[in-house]
Amino acid sequence: MKIVVLKFGGTSVGSIGRVKNVAKIIIRFLKKRYKVIVVSSAMAGETNKLVKLTKQISNNFISSEYDQVVASGEQVSCSLIAGKLNDQGYLSRSWLGWQIPIFTQGKYSHSRIVSINKKNIIKFLRAGGVPIIAGFQGVNSENRITTIGRGGSDATAIMLAKFFKAEKCIIYTDVDGVYTTDPRVVPRAKKIEKISYEEMLEMASLGAKVMQPHSIQDARLNRIDIEVRSSFKNVSGSLITKRKNVSTKKNIIRGVSFSKNDSKLTLVGVKDRPGVAAAIFEPLFRNSINVDMVVQNISSNEKETDLTFTIKNDDLIKTEKLIKKNKKIKFNNIIIDEKVSKVSIVGVGMITTPGVTYRMFNALAKKNINILVISTSEIKISVLVDRKNLKKAVDVLHKEFKLDY
Amino acid sequence: MKIVVLKFGGTSVGSIGRVKNVAKIIIRFLKKRYKVIVVSSAMAGETNKLVKLTKQISNNFISSEYDQVVASGEQVSCSLIAGKLNDQGYLSRSWLGWQIPIFTQGKYSHSRIVSINKKNIIKFLRAGGVPIIAGFQGVNSENRITTIGRGGSDATAIMLAKFFKAEKCIIYTDVDGVYTTDPRVVPRAKKIEKISYEEMLEMASLGAKVMQPHSIQDARLNRIDIEVRSSFKNVSGSLITKRKNVSTKKNIIRGVSFSKNDSKLTLVGVKDRPGVAAAIFEPLFRNSINVDMVVQNISSNEKETDLTFTIKNDDLIKTEKLIKKNKKIKFNNIIIDEKVSKVSIVGVGMITTPGVTYRMFNALAKKNINILVISTSEIKISVLVDRKNLKKAVDVLHKEFKLDY
Repeated sequence: MKIVVLKFGGTSVGSIGRVKNVAKIIIRFLKKRYKVIVVSSAMAGETNKLVKLTKQISNNFISSEYDQVVASGEQVSCSLIAGKLNDQGYLSRSWLGWQIPIFTQGKYSHSRIVSINKKNIIKFLRAGGVPIIAGFQGVNSENRITTIGRGGSDATAIMLAKFFKAEKCIIYTDVDGVYTTDPRVVPRAKKIEKISYEEMLEMASLGAKVMQPHSIQDARLNRIDIEVRSSFKNVSGSLITKRKNVSTKKNIIRGVSFSKNDSKLTLVGVKDRPGVAAAIFEPLFRNSINVDMVVQNISSNEKETDLTFTIKNDDLIKTEKLIKKNKKIKFNNIIIDEKVSKVSIVGVGMITTPGVTYRMFNALAKKNINILVISTSEIKISVLVDRKNLKKAVDVLHKEFKLDY
Repeated sequence: MKIVVLKFGGTSVGSIGRVKNVAKIIIRFLKKRYKVIVVSSAMAGETNKLVKLTKQISNNFISSEYDQVVASGEQVSCSLIAGKLNDQGYLSRSWLGWQIPIFTQGKYSHSRIVSINKKNIIKFLRAGGVPIIAGFQGVNSENRITTIGRGGSDATAIMLAKFFKAEKCIIYTDVDGVYTTDPRVVPRAKKIEKISYEEMLEMASLGAKVMQPHSIQDARLNRIDIEVRSSFKNVSGSLITKRKNVSTKKNIIRGVSFSKNDSKLTLVGVKDRPGVAAAIFEPLFRNSINVDMVVQNISSNEKETDLTFTIKNDDLIKTEKLIKKNKKIKFNNIIIDEKVSKVSIVGVGMITTPGVTYRMFNALAKKNINILVISTSEIKISVLVDRKNLKKAVDVLHKEFKLDY
């Protein structure tokens, strides 16, 4: 069987008109003789509405009932799609997590799919039916509804693609693919035809609207190719695939990503002793503050060092408070710059291509953009710059690494 | 175990504040050492919203998916109640039809409950838990969600009361009981403490807001006593019970019911031959037009007769059209009066009490109210009057049969 898994996000089923459009997309695949497995999210806004109801009951709403409430959103949308297909003369039915069943383990709201019973779905596909499967949900060993914590409906689609050995897994969403950078910043940004899982993960800031990092990671671990495309216009999207499928000859760098709202903190004259970095970051970690770039300057004074790190602007007030009341550390001064941005170039090609770092720094220097902090990974180089330089930096790097054409 | 089944209608769970109030009512019963089984409807308005979605997809929305869509309403409300009880420190969980399971047979949207697996619920009750059961839904032999056509959540409550041999079955709604007549017409109307199933069924016009006739019939067949009371104020309601439990000494007549918007049609000079009545009513029946009172006058002319019947005003245009284009019947004239109303007195006592009919007609005559049509059943006498006389008729009958005090 030539199986394709099509996943439709909340905005793709966000209105009756859009549900009807989803049916049209499915029928296109049926006409190409694909066996189609559909995964649907809840209609846009529904899940938030349901979550709000539980919060109004209690801020500690019991998670088993929470899962049952929020799972009702997908229950509705997948029936609407199946209903539309039946109306058009196609055999189709909805399947909820417990009906298949999609077995999950782990805590409520944070469950993970451990197995999928294929029997009934295979039988239905053989009979020419289109199963419309509720995303984001499963059933546990106690016969109760669970929801998947990480990746939601995307994760359901990826697991179905894996278990049913699908030829394709297409994630339909409201953007038409992954771009070399944000087109609002660089209008010349181009859609990326193919990108590796690893690059996609590193381009989180650009990709967040496309797919959750956890789902990309799931796809990577299971070697499932994912096509991301728009349900609103019939144009090809971006393929997220294995590294070896991604041609790196033409473009060493695949994209320029950035985060706008960062803050830089420098602790000047930290009394340097073993474990001091842990002492600084532990309270931040315990308060769910995500520390991004970290640089420890070489100290001129052997007993003292300067420590610089970045966080999201939203966490600044909390972070400052935690640092100042931290009795385990001593430092002379704290310097805060809340107007910085991070710009990154991403590409698996940089591993085998020397000089990428130099080209990046040189391009920025030519535009008089000062680099505040640098951090590198195998396939990404990030620099921190003044926020006023952000647009200029993204623009020059996009040009330097030939992403314009 | 001293079990009570509490059923909460849509308005009783129509907002977060009301769900919290429902939890309070449940806790009152727990404090009286009852084992409480709760049945919940969907939050008011939700089912209509869901039905509308299916209609926007198709006017012929496939019934299996329809059931799954509308069943999601109860799924949410019962979890919210369970969540609130947990928040208050009580052991509680929701149970959907398929989780218990509540097995149904018959067509989708018109299924009926055939069995309820008691095991897990009994175990949970013994452990001190409060099961919150989604009304209106079950599961069929194909493991798919079904909804109960007749009586909805009330029917679920009655079947649970039957299977669990509950001591009480209380239907919480937005009215505080059954009244001797509509208090908006006769402000002296009194709440009826006890009423028989049969009387309740005959008082449909007053009772429709209280309980669906099908559920009353279910309760009657299973000999389940039902208390109807308000979830908004803590006052005793009305008990719907077996005929022998209803004292009839004091009041021969239990209530005066009425329907406002009737139309009377008279076919004058119908050519009388066998089967002519069937020929008149068959097309009405096939178009779901409910014919209420029917009178065939004795004809002076052996070959002709006058036939009078009543229908709801809403059906008048359709009925007139169907009668006029009916080729199977012949008549001289059609007289329509669209300003008539039906007034009924109801009471099991009338079976053993002579003179009730006389007293009714006499009371109306004294007020110069002309009777247009009469129809009688074992425990009900109905008369058709001009609409302008409706209020006066209800008022005088309420007084005549000592319902004022």
